[in-house]
Amino acid sequence: MNVLIVYAHPEPRSLNGSLKDFSVKRLQDAGHTVQVSDLYAMNWKASLDADDSLAHRAGERFDPSRASKHAFENGLQSADIAAEQAKLKWADAVILQFPLWWFTMPAILKGWVERVYAYGFAYGVGEHSDARWGDRYGEGMFAGKRAMLVVTTGGWESHYSARGINGPIDDVLFPIQHGVLYYPGFDVLPPFVVYRTSRVDEAKYLDVREALGERLDTLWNTAPIPFRPQNGGAYRIPELTLKDDIAAGREGLGVHVE
Amino acid sequence: MNVLIVYAHPEPRSLNGSLKDFSVKRLQDAGHTVQVSDLYAMNWKASLDADDSLAHRAGERFDPSRASKHAFENGLQSADIAAEQAKLKWADAVILQFPLWWFTMPAILKGWVERVYAYGFAYGVGEHSDARWGDRYGEGMFAGKRAMLVVTTGGWESHYSARGINGPIDDVLFPIQHGVLYYPGFDVLPPFVVYRTSRVDEAKYLDVREALGERLDTLWNTAPIPFRPQNGGAYRIPELTLKDDIAAGREGLGVHVE
Repeated sequence: MNVLIVYAHPEPRSLNGSLKDFSVKRLQDAGHTVQVSDLYAMNWKASLDADDSLAHRAGERFDPSRASKHAFENGLQSADIAAEQAKLKWADAVILQFPLWWFTMPAILKGWVERVYAYGFAYGVGEHSDARWGDRYGEGMFAGKRAMLVVTTGGWESHYSARGINGPIDDVLFPIQHGVLYYPGFDVLPPFVVYRTSRVDEAKYLDVREALGERLDTLWNTAPIPFRPQNGGAYRIPELTLKDDIAAGREGLGVHVE
Repeated sequence: MNVLIVYAHPEPRSLNGSLKDFSVKRLQDAGHTVQVSDLYAMNWKASLDADDSLAHRAGERFDPSRASKHAFENGLQSADIAAEQAKLKWADAVILQFPLWWFTMPAILKGWVERVYAYGFAYGVGEHSDARWGDRYGEGMFAGKRAMLVVTTGGWESHYSARGINGPIDDVLFPIQHGVLYYPGFDVLPPFVVYRTSRVDEAKYLDVREALGERLDTLWNTAPIPFRPQNGGAYRIPELTLKDDIAAGREGLGVHVE
């Protein structure tokens, strides 16, 4: 199988760097083909702007969605964007690996999402009707592919527990797992999270590596998070609110998981 | 009063650009002093890296937190970072204004947070003991200052309602409002959100402006979101989980609001 690792850490000799190298080897040893988008090493351009389209003329008003659509449809995207899209199409599974900075992904990775997720590619796909609201949330370009987050954080596991002060890790990661990955169709596996990174000594590191190895070995048969498909009947269209009989009486992010 | 608007949109002739200009004038007309950090216009460097510290030596291993701490303590931060920190210290209120891209702030603004929020400035402050876990979540450098998000999104309000598919807007914004703003001590006002931006015609625009004007006029007396202070007795230390008698039996992000 083909695995794309999109990796965002500025220091190769970090815990993240070691885990990324480990993942590449583990996957290759199992017979998979691996590509790594090492965003810092690539000096990835983080900020979405008018230069992302080769068609942009100086002084012209820039509408991000419209420009993205036009560039994507007409082969006028910046080359770095098109290259990442090709990797995504090639991949059977995608791993986003990053340290949790201020409760979400680093800016450089957010900028990868913004620029690579073109209109017509990762959003703005499919028909809108009484029965469907585009190909999204369970459908879309990446349907049939798997995705997983590999995340490190300085905080303790309890800080991210159900009643922990940072918010439950599933809720903190919801905008990424549901919003960035499930939206364009990925099956999203439970995240692999390393907590309290300052306390990862040699013994703990070996445990972490072992646990990550397990997750990589089972990438193809781990059950995805059962997010509810948008067009599967659970949501009113076009309001996109859950129907009353689904997760009746409940609210919050968790209701979008079966 | 002094107001800092940190603004992230690439096109001045956008809805965001118009609302930003409107806000500046409205606040100035009311006698306030306004500074704008127009991140795209400033060509803000989005990616946190070793170059953010003037002390970094080529080839040296880069630890983001340690480097940030050392540079902050020794006056060795990149000049753009120090300038933004000075604006934050100057401000009585801070407005972050941005389009919601993939369910959070644009990369360029995320990179502003990562780089400006130095160790010793916005985190890593205060003592750790049996009774306190640093000056954070209600305490810290920005205690006594107010903050508010001004956000635009293409999605419908119902999509961000309590049972809407994108998640309730308060939950979607939690990592920013609680994690980026309340963490270093800001009093966080309810967000000002413009939904379904593609349908904002001239009449609707005037309504939006009017409503935003109201919020700016009441910036100093609107009640903040009552997030629970970390060191106020509601949380176990150091687990940082809510004590059993607080929001008893409840889970999720909402439990951190009184």
